[in-house]
Parts: sequence; C-alpha cells; structure tokens
Amino acid sequence: MSGGETSVGRGRLEGFSDGVMAVIITIMAFQLKTPVTADFHGLGGQVPSLAVYVLSFAMIGIYWNNHHHLLAEARGVTALVMWTNLVLLFWLSLVPFATNWVGAAYNHAAPAATYGVVALASAIAYFALERAIVAANSSERATFAFERGDFKGFASPVMYAFGIGLAFASPYLAYACYTAVSVMWFVPTRRVVKQR
Amino acid sequence: MSGGETSVGRGRLEGFSDGVMAVIITIMAFQLKTPVTADFHGLGGQVPSLAVYVLSFAMIGIYWNNHHHLLAEARGVTALVMWTNLVLLFWLSLVPFATNWVGAAYNHAAPAATYGVVALASAIAYFALERAIVAANSSERATFAFERGDFKGFASPVMYAFGIGLAFASPYLAYACYTAVSVMWFVPTRRVVKQR
Amino acid sequence: MSGGETSVGRGRLEGFSDGVMAVIITIMAFQLKTPVTADFHGLGGQVPSLAVYVLSFAMIGIYWNNHHHLLAEARGVTALVMWTNLVLLFWLSLVPFATNWVGAAYNHAAPAATYGVVALASAIAYFALERAIVAANSSERATFAFERGDFKGFASPVMYAFGIGLAFASPYLAYACYTAVSVMWFVPTRRVVKQR
Amino acid sequence: MSGGETSVGRGRLEGFSDGVMAVIITIMAFQLKTPVTADFHGLGGQVPSLAVYVLSFAMIGIYWNNHHHLLAEARGVTALVMWTNLVLLFWLSLVPFATNWVGAAYNHAAPAATYGVVALASAIAYFALERAIVAANSSERATFAFERGDFKGFASPVMYAFGIGLAFASPYLAYACYTAVSVMWFVPTRRVVKQR
Repeated sequence: MSGGETSVGRGRLEGFSDGVMAVIITIMAFQLKTPVTADFHGLGGQVPSLAVYVLSFAMIGIYWNNHHHLLAEARGVTALVMWTNLVLLFWLSLVPFATNWVGAAYNHAAPAATYGVVALASAIAYFALERAIVAANSSERATFAFERGDFKGFASPVMYAFGIGLAFASPYLAYACYTAVSVMWFVPTRRVVKQR
Repeated sequence: MSGGETSVGRGRLEGFSDGVMAVIITIMAFQLKTPVTADFHGLGGQVPSLAVYVLSFAMIGIYWNNHHHLLAEARGVTALVMWTNLVLLFWLSLVPFATNWVGAAYNHAAPAATYGVVALASAIAYFALERAIVAANSSERATFAFERGDFKGFASPVMYAFGIGLAFASPYLAYACYTAVSVMWFVPTRRVVKQR
Repeated sequence: MSGGETSVGRGRLEGFSDGVMAVIITIMAFQLKTPVTADFHGLGGQVPSLAVYVLSFAMIGIYWNNHHHLLAEARGVTALVMWTNLVLLFWLSLVPFATNWVGAAYNHAAPAATYGVVALASAIAYFALERAIVAANSSERATFAFERGDFKGFASPVMYAFGIGLAFASPYLAYACYTAVSVMWFVPTRRVVKQR
Repeated sequence: MSGGETSVGRGRLEGFSDGVMAVIITIMAFQLKTPVTADFHGLGGQVPSLAVYVLSFAMIGIYWNNHHHLLAEARGVTALVMWTNLVLLFWLSLVPFATNWVGAAYNHAAPAATYGVVALASAIAYFALERAIVAANSSERATFAFERGDFKGFASPVMYAFGIGLAFASPYLAYACYTAVSVMWFVPTRRVVKQR
C-alpha cells in the first residue's frame, strides 16, 4: 500500500474515536450546573467547575490532536491496535466522571487523586496504543520516528503518578502537576508533525 | 464494483452506526453519579455502577469491532441491511437504560434479567444483520467466509438466554454468564479478519 | 461532475446530519428513567415511555434512511439546501423533548398534539429539503425521479395534521395516526432506491 | 495539491468539529425540561427556554455553515489551525451552559451578559481561526478572498460587546443585539461561496 493511501479500517477507527472524544468533550460542558442565583455571584460559585472543565477540555483536546498525528502514521490496523484504542477510549470516557467529582469537591484528596488515576491510566493506554501502532508498522522509518524523542510519552505517566501522591498532601499541588502535563503536551511533538 | 471500493451507502451506514455507538458508550459513563462523600468510601459506593459500566463498555466495544469487520465484507447495502442495522442500533441504545438500572439495583433479579433481554435482543439483531449482509452479497466467497465457524453468533443468544434464566436464581450468576459472552467475543473470529 | 462522485460539501452535510440524528436517537434512550422499584412492576411503569421511544426511534430512523437516499441523488449543495437541512435538524432535535413529555403524560391532549406539531414541522421541512435538492439538481432525470410518486411526501403532513386534531378527541387516536405515518414510510419509496 | 483534493488532516478536523457541533446543538434540546403541567399552559412556561434554544441553534448552525465554507478553502492544516479550532470548539461548548442559564433566568443581567461573553469569545476564536487558515494558505487567491469584505467577521465581536453592555440596562436589548448578529450572518458571505 502506498504512502498516501488510507485503509478503510483506519478511517472507521478514526471516525469512532473522534465521535467518542467529541461526545466526551461536549458532555463535560453539559455537566456544568446552572448557577443557583441569577447574578455574577452565582456564576462565581461555578468557577471551580469551570476551571477543572478547562483542564479536562485541554486534556481531551491534546489526546485528540496527538491521536490524529499518531494514526496518520499508521498504515495497517491490527486487532491489537483496535483493542488498545478501545482501552484508551474507556479511560478517556471516565474523564467526565472524574471532572464532575473534582468540580463538586475540589478541595479533597480523593477526587484529586481519582482524577489523576484516570489521567494516568489514559496516558498508559495511549503509550500502549503507540507501541501497538509501531508494532503493526514494522518499517524502519516509522519505528525510528516513534522511538526518537519519546520523552513526553514517558514523562506523562510519571508526572501523573507524582500528582496522585501529591493529592494526599494538597489537592492544589496535584492540579498544578496535572496542568503541567497538559502544558508540556500542548505543542505537538517534533516526531510526527509532517502534514500530509 | 471491484473489491477494494466502498459504496457511498456503506460509508453513511458505517458513519451513522459509529455515531450511535460512540454516543451510547459515552453516555453510559455520563450516567455514573458523583460519589456522595468526597473520600474513597464515596468512590467505593460507585463500584457496582463502575463494574457494570465496564461490562457494557466491553459489550458495545465488541459490537463496534465486529460491526466494523462485518461491514468491511459488505459490497452492496440493501434496504434489509439498513433496517436490520437500525434494529440492532435500537437494542444497543437500550443498553444504557439497562446498565443504569443494574447499577442502581444490582442485587435484584429484574434488572439482571432485563439487562440480559437487551443483550439477547442485540445478539439476535446482530445475527439477522449478518444474514442480511450475506444475502446481499451472494458471491460464493463471502457466503463461505460467513458460514464457516459461525459458532459465536449461535452461542451468544443461547448464553444470554441461559443468563436470563439464572438471574431468577442469582443476579450474580447472570452477570457471570453475560461476562463470559464478552470474554468469548473479545478475540475477533477467524472468519473475517483479513485487513484491507 | 460525473454521476459516481460526491462533492466535499455533500459529505460534510451528510456527516453533520448523521451526527445530529445519531445523538437525537441515542439521547432519547438516555431519557428513559430508571424504574423506581427493582422488579418487573417497576419496569412496567416505564412501558408508556418505552412505547413512545420506539415510535420516535422509528421516526428518526426513517428520516435518516430517507435522508440517505435523498442526498445520494444530490449533486450540488446550495445554500438553500444547507439551510433547509438545518431547519429539518432543528425540528428533529425537538423530538426528544416531545417524546419525553408524551412519556411523562401520555394520556393528555397537549403532549400528544405537541408531538404531532413537531412531527408535522419535521415533515414539512423534509419536503422543503426535497424541493431544494430538486431545484439544485435541475437535470431532467432527477426532477423526474422526485416528481413521480411523491405521494408519501404529501400524505405525511396531512396525516400528522389530522393526528394533531384527533389528539383533542383522544391522545390514543393521535398516536395511532402518527404510527400509521411511520408504517407507511417504513418501506423506502420506489423513487430513489437505486443503490450506488 | 490540486484544488479538488482534501487532505487527511482536514478531513479529521472537519469530522471532529462536526461531531462536537452536532452534540452541542442536540444537547441543548435535551436540556429543555418537561413542562410541569400536562397542558398548553405548561408548554407556555417553556417558551423562554424554547426561544433562547432557537437563538442558540441558529448560532451554532451558522458557525457550522461558515466553518464548512472556511475549511473548504483550506489546503494545509497547521498546528495553529488545529489549536485555534479547538479554542473555537471550547467556547461553543459553553453555549449550552449559557443557554441553560438564560432559559432559567432570562430577565436578569448576569445570564444575558454571560451569554454574550460566550458568543463574543466564540466570534473572536472564529476570527482567529480564519486568520490561521489564511496564514496556512499563503496563495494570493485565498488571501484575497478572505481579506475582501471581511465586514461580518469584524462586526460580530463589536455587536456582541455592545450587547453585553446593554444587558446591564435591559436583558431584552441584549437578546435583540445577539439576534441581530445571527440575522446578519444568516446569508453566507459572498467571500467563500463558490461550491465545489
């Protein structure tokens, strides 16, 4: 199969993943509650919910963006790629649940740590998906492209794990840690940026 | 029409089905309630809901995966294929309803049996869709590929029906039975795995 | 542009319409409430909601199916086509609202009539979309194909209007009338069935 | 790359954006509450919610339509295009939140002004996306097409800002102002209307 073609399998994998991520990202906004009073004081009470929504929106947006670049490299879609992708979507689908809990009880350790666990599991699943795609595309070029500079893929789980630990000292330190991961990912890596 | 082409009709059938399944799978996560207390004890109270969510996510994920392989075989899309596909989506759309009820009252026979009825009806609809696609693609190759080893397609309804009966003895035995079906389907069948 | 090609514009129109219809059809199932008691008596209390859900699912499914056949005929997508399509989606997006109200108060005239008004407005919008597509594809072939036997397109609004009136005599007569429209549409018309 | 081709990157950008906008537009309808009484008086109580829903549906519909025309001009998709698009989707995802608040407390300044802030931020993000796409497509033709007559792109933020100010005098003046923006945008601009 030549370089510019896309397989039918990949198209549906992308379409389904985009659909799930689009619903996740929108449903979180839907969980924002109507302020209890009809003034800016009422809106102020929603600020923690809005703040964690921004963090989660950025996280899902980054996953979508990286997923986009990652699958653009994939030629073949194996069963392993499909299942690891489903596992990634499973963990991402729990982000609204964690977001909601943090929004409702942001100054407690348990929601802060749970948010981190969902983020950590998502990061590990993404890393596994990356490996599965490399394995399915054994050409030297692809392997090289992924192997080089995979710093962020390793750093994310480590930082999330650290944040989970910090949550028991202070939830705010945990949120700072999770935010740092998003900031780090915000610029797409140099690895797979060549646009087609 | 040559083997590698996709018809416009199939594309929209896939797109709509993917959209419905993406929304179903995500909306179930949205139904997970915020824990009532802001500690791990509160999270523990959500464990039954989370467990049945995992089961339902796996079920929809398996349907999506198999649907993907099944439609990849389809050349022509007949009216019968479109309607049986809609019937399948109808039953799958009731999975969040059944999941929600099991999550709220997992140790009762009625929700456990209802979950099984939705799963059974989905399995029958999927089987009917498979037949409709075979009928629409009368080439010997396709027929042969589907006819051979259709063990799982027959076993699933039987196992779900057995689970529905077991629900009246113990809901937990029913859940074990439903889980067994998912485990069985997890590896895609040898029938239609050739990637395009 | 040759007969087998699809324009970029049409592809996005189909994708967006499919997305909206997929969300509508799934969100209605999500509005089904968890039975209040964990037995089949509790499930029985949801039967009216489930029945109207079946009716609405069939209605949206029929629109999706006919929309699919209709746009397959369209070569050019004009601004008028895009706006009439948006108007159709607007009215379809109110179907969950009407469905929910009927499910909650099925034996009253107001919800039954409101359901009919939403269905009537959707049918009129669909008819307008059909006209807009005919106007955008002035080739004699397409015009002929649509003009011939457009019985259902005329009959639907008439039957819905009749059902709205009946709602004030008996909501059940109105539901029978709405169901008759769905049954009538269930078989795709002979006009535009040639699969591509 | 010739004029009629679409890049893989653009396809997914469109697909994801369409998915998010489809969910936003549908979820707003889902937030419409079942009337409290089963008669037309009960429906009358939902009129403010329905009115603001119509306004928001028109706004998202216009964004979708213009987004469609805008991306049809884009040849290359840069990282900047992807991020500005995500920022646009972020602000649009807050439209249901603002819509809900206005529907619940339409005669107060705070919800009316908040709605305007979300609309203003969306308009600014759309303007930034337009700039990013022009920058990514440095051909003279594209630049010329966008530069000429970009009146609406400038007028929208100004009108929204004016409406936000008016909200503190009367919420109804603010709504009139927001409605005027939608009416202005309703006809697609002459800039990028050439259908492909």
